[in-house]
Formats: sequence, C-alpha cells, structure tokens
Amino acid sequence: MTFTPTDYDPYDFANRRHIGPSPAEMTEMLKAVGVPTLEALIDETIPASIRQETPLGWAPLSEHELLAKLRDVAAKNRVMTSLIGQGYYGTVTPPAIQRNILENPAWYTAYTPYQPEIAQGRLEALLNYQTMVADLTGLPVANASLLDEATAAAEAMAMAERVAKSKARAFFVDTHCHPQTIEVIRTRALPLGIEVIVADPEFLEPEKVFGAIFQYPGTWGNVRDLEPWIDRLHGAKAVAVVATDLLALMMLKAPGEMGADIAVGSAQRFGVPMGYGGPHAAFMSCKDDMKRAMPGRIVGVSIDARGNKAYRLSLQTREQHIRREKATSNVCTAQALLAVMASMYAVFHGPVGLRAIAERVHSYTVRLASALREAGAVLPQKHFFDTITVNVGVGQAGILAAARLEGLNFRKVGHDHVGISLDETTNEDVLARVLRAFGIHTAPPVSADLGFPEAMLRRSEVLTHPVFHMNRAESEMMRYMRRLSDRDLALDRAMIPLGSCTMKLNAAAEMMPITWPEFSSLHPFVPADQAAGYHEAISDLSEKLCEITGYDAFSMQPNSGAQGEYAGLLTIQAYHRARGEGHRDVCLIPVSAHGTNPASAQMAGMKVVVVKSSANGDVDVEDFRARAAEAGDRLAACMITYPSTHGVFEETVREICKITHEHGGQVYIDGANMNAMVGLVKPGEVGGDVSHLNLHKTFAIPHGGGGPGMGPIGVKAHLAPHLPGHPEVGGAEGPVSAAPYGSASILLISWAYCLMMGGAGLTQATRVAILNANYIAARLKGAYEVLFMGNRGRVAHECILDTRPFAEAGVTVDDIAKRLIDNGFHAPTMSWPVAGTLMVEPTESETKAEIDRFITALLAIRAEIKAVEAGEISAEDSPLRHAPHTVEDLVADWERKYPREQGCFPPGAFRVDKYWPPVGRVDNVYGDRNLICICPPVESYMAAE
Amino acid sequence: MTFTPTDYDPYDFANRRHIGPSPAEMTEMLKAVGVPTLEALIDETIPASIRQETPLGWAPLSEHELLAKLRDVAAKNRVMTSLIGQGYYGTVTPPAIQRNILENPAWYTAYTPYQPEIAQGRLEALLNYQTMVADLTGLPVANASLLDEATAAAEAMAMAERVAKSKARAFFVDTHCHPQTIEVIRTRALPLGIEVIVADPEFLEPEKVFGAIFQYPGTWGNVRDLEPWIDRLHGAKAVAVVATDLLALMMLKAPGEMGADIAVGSAQRFGVPMGYGGPHAAFMSCKDDMKRAMPGRIVGVSIDARGNKAYRLSLQTREQHIRREKATSNVCTAQALLAVMASMYAVFHGPVGLRAIAERVHSYTVRLASALREAGAVLPQKHFFDTITVNVGVGQAGILAAARLEGLNFRKVGHDHVGISLDETTNEDVLARVLRAFGIHTAPPVSADLGFPEAMLRRSEVLTHPVFHMNRAESEMMRYMRRLSDRDLALDRAMIPLGSCTMKLNAAAEMMPITWPEFSSLHPFVPADQAAGYHEAISDLSEKLCEITGYDAFSMQPNSGAQGEYAGLLTIQAYHRARGEGHRDVCLIPVSAHGTNPASAQMAGMKVVVVKSSANGDVDVEDFRARAAEAGDRLAACMITYPSTHGVFEETVREICKITHEHGGQVYIDGANMNAMVGLVKPGEVGGDVSHLNLHKTFAIPHGGGGPGMGPIGVKAHLAPHLPGHPEVGGAEGPVSAAPYGSASILLISWAYCLMMGGAGLTQATRVAILNANYIAARLKGAYEVLFMGNRGRVAHECILDTRPFAEAGVTVDDIAKRLIDNGFHAPTMSWPVAGTLMVEPTESETKAEIDRFITALLAIRAEIKAVEAGEISAEDSPLRHAPHTVEDLVADWERKYPREQGCFPPGAFRVDKYWPPVGRVDNVYGDRNLICICPPVESYMAAE
Repeated sequence: MTFTPTDYDPYDFANRRHIGPSPAEMTEMLKAVGVPTLEALIDETIPASIRQETPLGWAPLSEHELLAKLRDVAAKNRVMTSLIGQGYYGTVTPPAIQRNILENPAWYTAYTPYQPEIAQGRLEALLNYQTMVADLTGLPVANASLLDEATAAAEAMAMAERVAKSKARAFFVDTHCHPQTIEVIRTRALPLGIEVIVADPEFLEPEKVFGAIFQYPGTWGNVRDLEPWIDRLHGAKAVAVVATDLLALMMLKAPGEMGADIAVGSAQRFGVPMGYGGPHAAFMSCKDDMKRAMPGRIVGVSIDARGNKAYRLSLQTREQHIRREKATSNVCTAQALLAVMASMYAVFHGPVGLRAIAERVHSYTVRLASALREAGAVLPQKHFFDTITVNVGVGQAGILAAARLEGLNFRKVGHDHVGISLDETTNEDVLARVLRAFGIHTAPPVSADLGFPEAMLRRSEVLTHPVFHMNRAESEMMRYMRRLSDRDLALDRAMIPLGSCTMKLNAAAEMMPITWPEFSSLHPFVPADQAAGYHEAISDLSEKLCEITGYDAFSMQPNSGAQGEYAGLLTIQAYHRARGEGHRDVCLIPVSAHGTNPASAQMAGMKVVVVKSSANGDVDVEDFRARAAEAGDRLAACMITYPSTHGVFEETVREICKITHEHGGQVYIDGANMNAMVGLVKPGEVGGDVSHLNLHKTFAIPHGGGGPGMGPIGVKAHLAPHLPGHPEVGGAEGPVSAAPYGSASILLISWAYCLMMGGAGLTQATRVAILNANYIAARLKGAYEVLFMGNRGRVAHECILDTRPFAEAGVTVDDIAKRLIDNGFHAPTMSWPVAGTLMVEPTESETKAEIDRFITALLAIRAEIKAVEAGEISAEDSPLRHAPHTVEDLVADWERKYPREQGCFPPGAFRVDKYWPPVGRVDNVYGDRNLICICPPVESYMAAE
Repeated sequence: MTFTPTDYDPYDFANRRHIGPSPAEMTEMLKAVGVPTLEALIDETIPASIRQETPLGWAPLSEHELLAKLRDVAAKNRVMTSLIGQGYYGTVTPPAIQRNILENPAWYTAYTPYQPEIAQGRLEALLNYQTMVADLTGLPVANASLLDEATAAAEAMAMAERVAKSKARAFFVDTHCHPQTIEVIRTRALPLGIEVIVADPEFLEPEKVFGAIFQYPGTWGNVRDLEPWIDRLHGAKAVAVVATDLLALMMLKAPGEMGADIAVGSAQRFGVPMGYGGPHAAFMSCKDDMKRAMPGRIVGVSIDARGNKAYRLSLQTREQHIRREKATSNVCTAQALLAVMASMYAVFHGPVGLRAIAERVHSYTVRLASALREAGAVLPQKHFFDTITVNVGVGQAGILAAARLEGLNFRKVGHDHVGISLDETTNEDVLARVLRAFGIHTAPPVSADLGFPEAMLRRSEVLTHPVFHMNRAESEMMRYMRRLSDRDLALDRAMIPLGSCTMKLNAAAEMMPITWPEFSSLHPFVPADQAAGYHEAISDLSEKLCEITGYDAFSMQPNSGAQGEYAGLLTIQAYHRARGEGHRDVCLIPVSAHGTNPASAQMAGMKVVVVKSSANGDVDVEDFRARAAEAGDRLAACMITYPSTHGVFEETVREICKITHEHGGQVYIDGANMNAMVGLVKPGEVGGDVSHLNLHKTFAIPHGGGGPGMGPIGVKAHLAPHLPGHPEVGGAEGPVSAAPYGSASILLISWAYCLMMGGAGLTQATRVAILNANYIAARLKGAYEVLFMGNRGRVAHECILDTRPFAEAGVTVDDIAKRLIDNGFHAPTMSWPVAGTLMVEPTESETKAEIDRFITALLAIRAEIKAVEAGEISAEDSPLRHAPHTVEDLVADWERKYPREQGCFPPGAFRVDKYWPPVGRVDNVYGDRNLICICPPVESYMAAE
C-alpha cells in the first residue's frame, strides 16, 4: 500500500498560530461579507493601480527552526564584561521580575492605560515609578518614562525654552554630558533655531541662554557641586536641567536639592538589561510649577464612581491630544514595561537595598582608583561615584587590548584616556581583572575614602512610601506582581480591538530570545565584532523591511513611531540642504492626519500647511494641488497616511505623490497603517520617499502596557546618505536616539516574526486583517453606521462606528466604551479620527469566535441604546451609564433599574471566566483638578523590616 | 571621611528572598510565641540529644552567581541528536505551552487538586489528558498520569494480578519490551513472589500466567498484531497489558481495538522535553469493569451546590486513602504538570496535527529503511513505525562512532545491531546525517511503502471532543491556558498552609535552568561524556544531601516519595539477603504512620507489624520493644517518621533505633518532615540507616498541581552497595524507575536551592519554619485547640488544629476548609493524621503579613462557629455551610440569613484582589456515583476548522 502523508503542516506558524480564523471560519466570514474569495475581497478593497507586482519572497521557518536559528545567531555575539558606562551599565535583573513581568504576557501584551478601569495594575506600577524618580531626583513631579536619556535631555531643552522667562535663544550643554546626549540635543536644536553652546560650565554665561544641562555625575565620572552654576542660571531667569543617574543618587545629593528645575536620566540600571541599546525607561522630573509643561505621560490619582481611589493618566498626552502644529513635542508614548520593571526593582530592593548596591559599586570604584593612583596612574577627576577616567597616554590601545584579553570592555576616551564604569555586577573577580589589565596584581583593601566631598552626600530620606518597604520575600513580590497584573485586561485574556493600534498576537517564540544573555547583556557601544549576531539580525531585518516597503535602506534608530516621523523629516531636510535647497520648509499635511504628523513637522522646523479632506476623509486632491502650488519651491514635504487614518485606500495616492515630486518635495508616508499593506502594497512603489514603520503595531512587538515601541524609517536610495548618524558608528547626520540601533533587543521580535511568517504568511496576514475588519463591518451593518467605506463599500483593516446618532438619547461614546468592559473587552479607539466614533481594528490574529463575541457585545449594547432611545430607561439609569460594573456593585444594595444579571453578564461576557474591573468608572475631572502623581499614603500596605 | 558601607547584602537569597519573615517581623513573632530568641525556640522544640553538632558548611550563591554557575555547568552537557528511542524521543515543546505553563507559577506552584473548588482549571486540563489517553489507546477509562512508563508497567502487572480470574502466579513479559521496563517489572515482582517469564510471545503459555505485557510497537521497532496472543490470554482468563506509544497510535490500530485490557506508556513525546530522564507523564487506561482497580488519580465530573458542572478527583487515591498494609500499590501521586503539558500539546495540534506529525515521523522512517535496505542492510523487523534496528555485524562500534561524528546518538542493541528511532524533530538534515553515518549520500524519495500492514492501520476517529478542535491560533491557546489557570488558586496568589506538604517558595531563579536546551534536550541514555554537566550537578547535590542527612550515599532514582520508601525497603532487603538473612521480613510501623509506609512495606514483600502510639501521637516505646522482641531475627526494618506525623520531635527516637538495631533490623526514617530538620538534626546521626527525601517538599521543587516530585534515598555506607541499579548504568540491584536518575532535570531545582541558600541559609529556613508554625499555634490558642504540643508546649514545623469540638454544633472540618476559600486560602490538610483536624504547615517562606491574614481568617471562622454554637444561626444556614461563595451567589437572589458582604468578604479576604472560585461546593457523592472520567460533551466549546 502506498503511503500518502497529509499535506497539513502542523508547524505552519502563519496560518496555524498567528492568523486567527481557520480556513473554515474564513469561508463563513467571506459569506457574511458577501464575497466569494479572500482575493476578491482584497480586489474590492485595494485599488489595482497600487498593488505590488512581486510577492514577498522568503520561506517561513517553524517555531523550532526559528529558535534554533536564533540560538546560532546569539552565539555570534560575544558577551564580555562591559565597563563602558556612558549611560549603560551592567545590572542584575531579579529573576522574579524577569519571569513574572518581562516574560509574562499579562504584562507585556497590555495596551497603554488610556482606559483606567482595566489598567489599575500597571498604573500603580507606573505611579511607583514616578514616586521613585521624584524621590531620588528630589523634584516633586515625575512622568511615567520617556524613550531614552538623550531624547529626554532634548525634551528637557524644549521644555526649558517653553518655561524659561529668559528670552535668550541659546542652550548651554555641559561638556561632561554623554556624547550621544550632546548630539541628540544638537539634532533637536538645529531645526528649532536654538543655538547649542557646548562647553565646560566654567564658561557658562547665564544671560546668554534660556537654559543649561549638566551631567551629574559627569560622563567621565566627575561628581561636581552644580549649585553655584544653577544659582547663576536662576539669576538670569534661565532653567537648569540635570541629567543624572538614579543609583548615584542613592548616595549623592539630589539635583532638586541643588536647585535644579528639571532632571532627566535613564532607569536602565534598575534591573533592565542593556540589550545592545534598549529598550529602557528614561525619566524626567521637574518642579511643581512646571508640571503642565512636562512632555510624556503622567499617572495620577483620582476616584471612581463609588469614590474609591483609582489611578488614571493625568494631563492626557494621548497621541490624539498632541497639539498638532502648535506642539513643542511629539512624545506620545513611554517605555511602560521597562518603567514597570525598574519600579519593581526598587520595590524588590527597597531603599536599604538600593543604598547597599550603590555603596558596593562605589566602594569598588574607590578601591580601583586608589590602586591605580598607587601604581602612579593619573586620574583627572577628583570626585567620582562609579566611573573613573585614566590618562594612559600612548598606552590607550594597549590598555584597551589588555582589557579585552581579560574579557573586559573599557571606554575609549579621546586619544589618551580610558574610562571605566563599575556597576552592580562588579565583584572581586572583575576588579582583579581590571587591575590586571593595568599590570596590577594585588587587590586593594576595602576601607577607603568616600570618593567625593561629604557635602555632596545625600542626607535626605528616599523611598519612604510603604510600597518600597514591603516585605521583599519573593513570595510576596511574586504575589504583588500577580495581583497588579490580574487587575488589568490584556491580550492574554481578550481581543483588544483598538483602531490604528494593531494589537496582534505577540507569539511566545518571538519573545524568547530577548532574555537570552547573548542578546540582553550587550552594551550598545561594544566593538562591532562582539555584536556580529546582532548585526546579522539587524541587516537581515532591514533587507526584509526593504522588500516589504519598496524602500532601499532602513535606519533602526528611532525608538517610537513619532521619533520615526521626526527622523524621516530630518532626513528629507538634510537631503534638501545637501542639494542647496535648504530653504524648502513647507510641509503639507491633511487635516485628517494623526496629531503627531504636524507635531513632528513642527519639531523638524517645518511650516505646516493643512490640506482639506473630503467628506469621506480622503485628501482633497484639488486643495492639495493648490497648496503645493502655493508653496512652490518652498515645498519640502508632504505627510500622508496610507491607507488613510479613516481606513481607506485612497485611489489618489499616486497623484498626490506626483504633485509633491513635481514641486520638488518629498513624500512622507506614515506607516501606522502598514498592517493593511504588507505583501500587497509597497509605500515605496506608490510614490513614498520615506516612511516609518511601527514595529510594535505591524511587526509583533508587544505594546508592553504603553511601550516599548520601535519606529525605524525606510527611505529611497537618494535619501539613504541622509539617515540619522550616531557618534559611535558615524554617519553624516546627527542622531535622534541615544543608541545607534534604538531599542535593538526588541528588533529580534520583529525579525522572528518575519522569519516565521515568511513572505506569503505576512501577505496572508494582511488579507485576513482586512477580512476581519470587513466581517465586523458587515455584521454590524444596520445596528451601527460604519463610516468611510471605500468606493466599493469596503473598509481596509479597521472600521469606524458612528456613535453620534446616540447623543440625542444621551448615550455617549464613553458609555459604550465602558460597557464593553462589562463584556470583558478593551474599548476600541475613542473619538479618533472623528469625534463621537469608535474605531475598531481586529487584526489578523483574532479568531472568528472572539470577533463574534465582540460583535455580540456591540449588538447587545445597541439594544440597550435602543431601550434608552425608546424611553424605556433613561441614559442615566441605564447599565450603559453605570458601566463598568464591579463586584462592589454586586455586593452592595442594588438600587438599579435593571437586574444584576443584565448589569454584570451582558451577552458576550464570559460567565466563569469573567474579568471584573477593580474600580468603577473613573472620574477624570476630579483627577485633573486634584493632580497627585506620586503614591498617596496608603494604609493598606503591609510594612516590614 | 572614611567610607563604611552598610552590611546589608541585597543578594542574600536565603534571608532576603526565600525566608518570609523579615528580622523585624521575627522579633514580633518571637514575642507572640513567648521566647526571647529563635535559638531559644529551637532549644525548646528539638531535644538537645538529637541536635547535630557541625553546622552545614557551604557558602551561599546569589541569584546571579547561581545562574552564571548553572550556565557553566550547562555548557558541559553536549546536546546531540539522540535517536536512541527506547521510550524517550525528541519533541517540539510549543513555545506557548512552555511559557504559559511550564514557566508560569500559576501552573507550577499549584498543589494537588484535592480541593476541587480551587482547582477547576487543572482538573479540566487533566480530564483532557485522560480523554486523550482513553481515545488513543482505545480503552474507555484513563487515569491522570503515573510516574514513568516502566513503573506504570509494573503497576499494570500488580493490577492484572488483582483483576485476573486466572490463579496462576506468573507474569509474561514480551522480550520486545524496553529493557528498563522489563527490569522494573522484575524488581517489583520479586518481593511479591510473582514469577516473571521474559520471552518472545511465540513462547507464551497463557494458562501459566495471570497476565502478560507486550510492547507495541516493540522496543526494536516491530509492529505486530497482538490480537491472537490477547485472545489466547483471555481464553485462559489472563489479563493482557500493552505498553504503547501515543504518537504511533495516531496511525496504528489501538490496543483496545486488539482486545487489550490495560494500556500503559509515556506521554513524553507530546511536547515534554526529555530532560535526561524526566519528569514526564506516564499513562494507564483500562476496560471499564477494571476502573476501580486502577492505581493513581482519576479526575471525574460532578456538580456543585448550584448543580453546575464541576470537576473533581474521583475514587480518591490521596495518600491518606492508601490502603496501608492491604495496599497493592503505593502510588499516591502523578505527573500533573507534565500531563497538563501533554494534554495541551494535543489541544494545540488537534487530531489533524498529531496525525500529520505521526505520518511525518513514519515517512522519514520508511525512507530511511528503504535507503538502508537498498544499500544492502539487514533490518530484522518487517513492520515498523518510527524505529528500525539494523544488523551491522562487527561494524557496530564503527557505526556508532560515525553517528557521533554526525552529532547523532544511535542505540546500541546487543553486539551487532544499532537502533534508530526517528521523532518529531527529524528533518531532511537529520535523515541525511543518519544516512551518511552508513556511508549513504543520496536521500531516498518521499513516496514509499506504508511500512506496516494495512490491517494495522488505525481506522477509528480519535480526539473528537470539541476541546481538541478548538481554533489553534496562539491567541486562543494562550487565553485558554490563562483562563484555566485563573480558575485555580496557587502559591502565586496565596499561602497554601497544607500540613506535611511544605508548600514553600519555588524561586524563579531555581526554575530557570530546567528549560535551557542543554538540560532539557538530553536523552537519559546518552553516553556519560555528553552529560558531564548533569553528573557534576547530581554528584554535588548528592554530597550536599549527604551532609544534610548524615548518610553516606544517595540514589536519585526514585521519582516520588512513595517510590523512595519502596526503594529504601528494597535496599534493606537486599542487604539482609547479601548477609544470608533473607528470611527477615517483619517491618514495624507505628499506627500513626503515613499510609504509604505500610503500602510500601507490603510492596517490598514485608509483613507489617503495627506498633501502638501513645495519646500524644508518639511511638509507644514499650510496645515497640515488645513487637521487636516478638519479631526477633525476623525483624527486617522499622519505619518511622521524624519529627512524627503529629509534628513532634520524639525524644525516644534514638531508643527506637537502638532496639531495632539490637534485633538486627534496619531503621527507615521517612523524610517527609525533613523541613523541620535540615541543618539541625541529621536522620543518619540519630540512628537511621535509610531515608527518602521529598525534594518537592523540603528542596523547593514545585508541586506542579500534583507532580512532579522526586524521592531520592540516602543510606549509610553498609547499604550503599544495595541501592537500585539500572540496566543502562549498572549496579547489583534492579531499578525502581525507568531512568537512572529519575526525573533528572528537576534535580537542578533542588541543587539551585541548596546552592543559593548555603548551609547557614538552609538551617535558618528550618528555624523559621518552626517559628512560623509556633507563631500560628500561639496566636490561635484559645480559639482552637492545638493538638500534640511537645513536652515544652511547642510544635515543630506544623500544627494540628482540632475541629472535633465543633461537631456538636454541626460544623464540619469541610465547612472550615471551604470557608477558607472565601478568604482566598487553600485549606490545610484535612483529617490527617487525625480525623476531624486541620494540619497547618506555613513553611519558612511565608511572611508574617500573610500568616496574619490566615490567622485573621481562622479567627473569623471561629467567631462564625461560635454564632452557630450560640444558636444565632444554624450550621445549615451559616456562611460556613454555604462556603465557598461564588459570583453566581452574588448575582442570584440572595436568600441567605447573613449579608452578601459577610458571605463574600470575610476578614482576611482581599477586597480588590479577591479570588473567586469558579464553582460552589462540589458534590462528592454525586461524582462517585456517576463516574465520568473523560470530557463530557460541552456545548460551550467553540469549534473551528
């Protein structure tokens, strides 16, 4: 008998694991949509004129093939002990935090906490982070993290300009700042017309600047009292910014105590692996009177419908709230997952542990310095914490080589110095190896000088809040992390149908490599030969992204989507400048654009000219033509989103690109909606010159509860020479991020995703994303009006539901969003791109069953609205207004006009496995009126020790 | 200024992370207990006469030092492609299952599901496992797993003897069984007086045996139709057992379809890594009329107080239910975590995927066989699935060496054959390497023969239940696993105060190495040089356990506590035999002993003589003396538990050992309570000759929801030569487990625990375990009577609360246990060692805060009992009887005589973070009356594909 094996491939990741609907489900869904085949649907959705001709080429890997390949690639990195410092330090990630947060989908698949009722856990963790930063920097207000230390410094400059009473147009930068910080500040300052003065503070002329930034301790290790310079700045009504180090602040006087207005820095060394550059959480804190000028997200404390304490994002800086062309920053994200890790590290160690770690690091540094001095070495800096710089004269190359033989990386400083930064992982063995690199073979004794003046010693108590004094037994810690995550609703429990946010599966296999030491332990500035594995991964990912987008080169530097926009516009500007057309400064942006578009253009120094949209959200081509003509040879760029923010594949896209190019402008295509294009349309082929990709949307990087993201940019060949450079790796232009490849370690996630999906799998994912959205639109027809169908009555990968017709009955978009929580769903995107609407994006990863559950929920909500419309119940009395329902509602006397059952178990909700929000509807007004953004005194914490 | 760093060590794992109470908390607790210092408490608890003199010696490692060391040790293992087969096969663990089950504390820290209300998730997963095994083997009833295939086969033999109508005393074993299976059967048969006939089935004489076991496919690969032999056995009223392979059964006719009565085997290749021997889940299924004779745990379906479907353990085989000296098996555990993984693997792949995997493996095997035959090789077996054996004549050594050069391990069979077993990980590359080892350089074509007769082809449908037809998208799978785990209460949410079960912290760092490929991918029978890392770990762990126990040698083979007892007694018997005293057969066991003690003695062929206990649970020394004298030179051993099962350090232990030795007996000290001794008392010093250790109690292996465990035995030097041997590694005696080092991979957990704790840390853990128990006893005094305080009014590491006084008011021990669920606690051990009591063991890992929460709960329960006693409410109407309360209770009309608030939020319960059981109190009687132990038809599953 001949044996004919089945052709079912159990290892087909794309069709079996990543894509939600099974083939049988798809058949049913196509029927509901009313098309015979998936391909037919795509033909009706995407204009033939813009479809790509060649399919994506590479073959897929199975999960185990992927992991085997990644292990091979990992082995090509060489993990040495990096004592390079410069903002990145060895750290010990507590295994309990690695396992229960970084490797736990309950944490990493969560979305940004815009819906506070389902995000109390991560909001608490982020509030802990803010409290920690505020305490350690000695400033009362902190935000919930920024992208990296260098961009935080650039943000601080922009903020200083905003708040300074000085009218000067220059910003002073201490030469002791990290080189990448200085360069990112320069990049940022240039288009804004800010003059950057880099010098030693002894040359500071306060009246000439609106602000200054100092590094404390300095990049070469110096610990200096900044107070005199800060006083002088204040005398000239200028703002003082201090870039600082959280671990050092456990021993050193706080910037706030020296009078600083703003502090910035990185929380990386609080338990977050270096990861060849990131992701890590940067921080910013400031004086109370400046808090409303602070960029980024801030968690605050408010109350819920029952008056119970509830956390929420304050002073909302949601993307949609970006102040468009009036913006001074395009920051609309954070590094939530990493901020959570850093805050848990502080909870894990508490002040006594952090102090011990700081002292330990410092003590090793003191011993190292004394041993070197005893051996006759010249150390330029008098006072230091963990970093020393040694004058080695012509011996620099020799010392660096000797260090490498000991498995160490020192920092090359100038031509005749080396820098050595010790860290939490330093032990006697590391110290001995460092000394051996200098030919010293006896370890110095433990007792030694303080290393810095007593006056600089920190005297104030820090981290006094009970959360930092919890019993730190691992059982307690594990339960605390579990309790917080249980309060939240993430992708590991339900679909998150957020329009434009692409909450797709983050597969376990994709996440595994990021915690392997070969990837996680690399300093971003190690010699390239130690990072051969990373370079292979990054280069292959770049190639694949080029094939996907039709661009010729990629820069992995921007570590958020907005950063990508900004970097892309800078690239365009540099290109114009290089051609002697530096005067081009007009950027055309449709009114329907995402708020970060004009904000980024503004940051890039461009003049934003708004272009009209037609009623269906499409760019008004005639208006576009007119505005382009008006700009004439001043036209620098246009920024368009494709498919549009309204979810439509505009047929006119080629025309718009043509017009732009005719006037000498460059086309920026926002890649936010790339999930509707991969494998079907290449932005580089329809006329784009540059695009950013949101790897955390389209390419499977998890949202992490509000970051990390990655926003690499692809460009056509003519722009490639003008991509961001970096002081550590070269390039003609300045950097936009602290590290050359941004948050390098999470690029592995996107690479793994591309490798497992294969070209065909990625393309099928796009098709199914479009099918899923059209299925929802078809099923909801009649109940809700779906806005902005394309010419053929199809949506792209998302659909917009109009809730404005319900306003008359008093039902708001909020009511619907909160009522969905009762069904166990995160709300769709609210009131964007059109106020009073809900934008839904199911992504390809959701199964028909889960989508049906969501549809059931929306139809039941519609029925409840009908009851209000019919006057059977008022909006105020309805379950819509009382949503979300909590256990407290059930336990309390029930004085509602509908039964408990209806309130708590609406159609679509799970019964046994129901998600219960820990708080009722959160009061936003109360929270903004009573802005509290550090941990409030809490009686319920259990103190110990 | 001189710098004096703090002496706080943030990396002190023992005192900072593992041990719960902080120093400040301990001070308070000692005060409550009424002793000045911890040492004083220990002096009052443990008689000075038995305290060890030398403290444990080794220094602790920090978490990061541990992980660095483990990485070094891992690198000493060499991961080759093992095609050895013989019951262990390469498999692909789906990353989603690895991350969300094996690496997730919600699953691995759970306890055995004796309390069904808080265990519905894992009970469902185990029911899936039973359904899968029943389906694939073609037999209607399956249990929830056994320890390994070889012990399952031995259990099947014992079961066959029990159920066979034949009165013959011999058991037939097919020579085609795996060698380790044959040897474990021999070991088991010897003390039971069963003759084992190992031969080819053609020599089977059915009337001479009560049963027979066949391997299908055979160990050398043969696929044979067993039906004729089974028919002949049935003709002689003998029982037919088939050891089989789940993957092969996707293609081959099921044992049940051939008439087999019992099937056994291993589910390892369903996604569970080989781990150098384990842990894996073995299985057993049988005909319906034999189900009540089946050993091990069986999950069944019942209803809860509202009549809703609820799962529970049926036909309870809890340790305490072991039938003592009448037992025919001492099995009282399972491999729950691994059974859950294997069942999820089946859910992940579904029948279509499993069939495809089976076909793929088979197809490669067919191609391999045809290429070899074409090259002139002689393959003795005609029909095969995944394994072939090749006659290589004098070329055996050469072929094995050539294979190793290709990175392959073949199996050495006899002196002139090699065996090759392909598996799920086989791909074209592996096939090419195998062929190259034979000098063949062209890969054979895909199309080929079936490889076995068409009559053997499986025709019946399998895995038809909807759970195996879920949409297998990873999102869906991830959510299914999360939902199940959320239904359960494990250590990651709350203390599990089970007496005698030592539910201590399972630290994240300890768990990390078990999923590293260097440890997880090793076949148990690889050449020793490929497992040098494992040998280093096992040998260092042995040394440390010797130091801890005072024994001279350890065997790591027994993979459960009961297996350890059995192995220990066999060792004693072998010793007596070797001295010409094989007639010694009496084993003295106190009446208070754990049920497995007499069961193990029975299995070891000993005659159990029960010794009285005094009122306080101590062994009655005079009775012991009299019984020992009676036994005289027939005395083989005594078995005692120390501290006693009543939690008391009996001062007479040395006397008992002395009496035993005087009569030529050996002393077995049960190590179940070793957590009260480590660092303070060495059983080997107080007179013990052999002990088993429950590594899953005292040495931090997680309970996994009911397994894995490990029960290695330590012995004095004179017994060392008589420890279990193994066909693969030698030794004078027979093996007790399938693999030489039992479940080797989880030994790493215990080793990691010992390394991080250090000798002093382990000792302190013991002290604090005793403190925690005494603190509970002191705090509950007045409310509950605490039984069996020692001479000085102290308990050891657990305390027994008497609930019998509440019987008069109608309040049962069950009421209290279920009411604790409302407080978010797992119940203590119920009615053991004394009926009507609760035994509480807090372990050293619980903090004062958590213990206080537990005490608060117990005191509130006592107040509710008082209300019943005072006649304020009847027991029937009280919240005690209605416990546990569910959300369904809250949603429904509340017709209770107490408020919702009291019912659901008793003192001690978390408010926001409350755990809600998914079902109300489960009806045990209903479940036993209506025994259903495969998945019931469920409408709620969402079918797909």
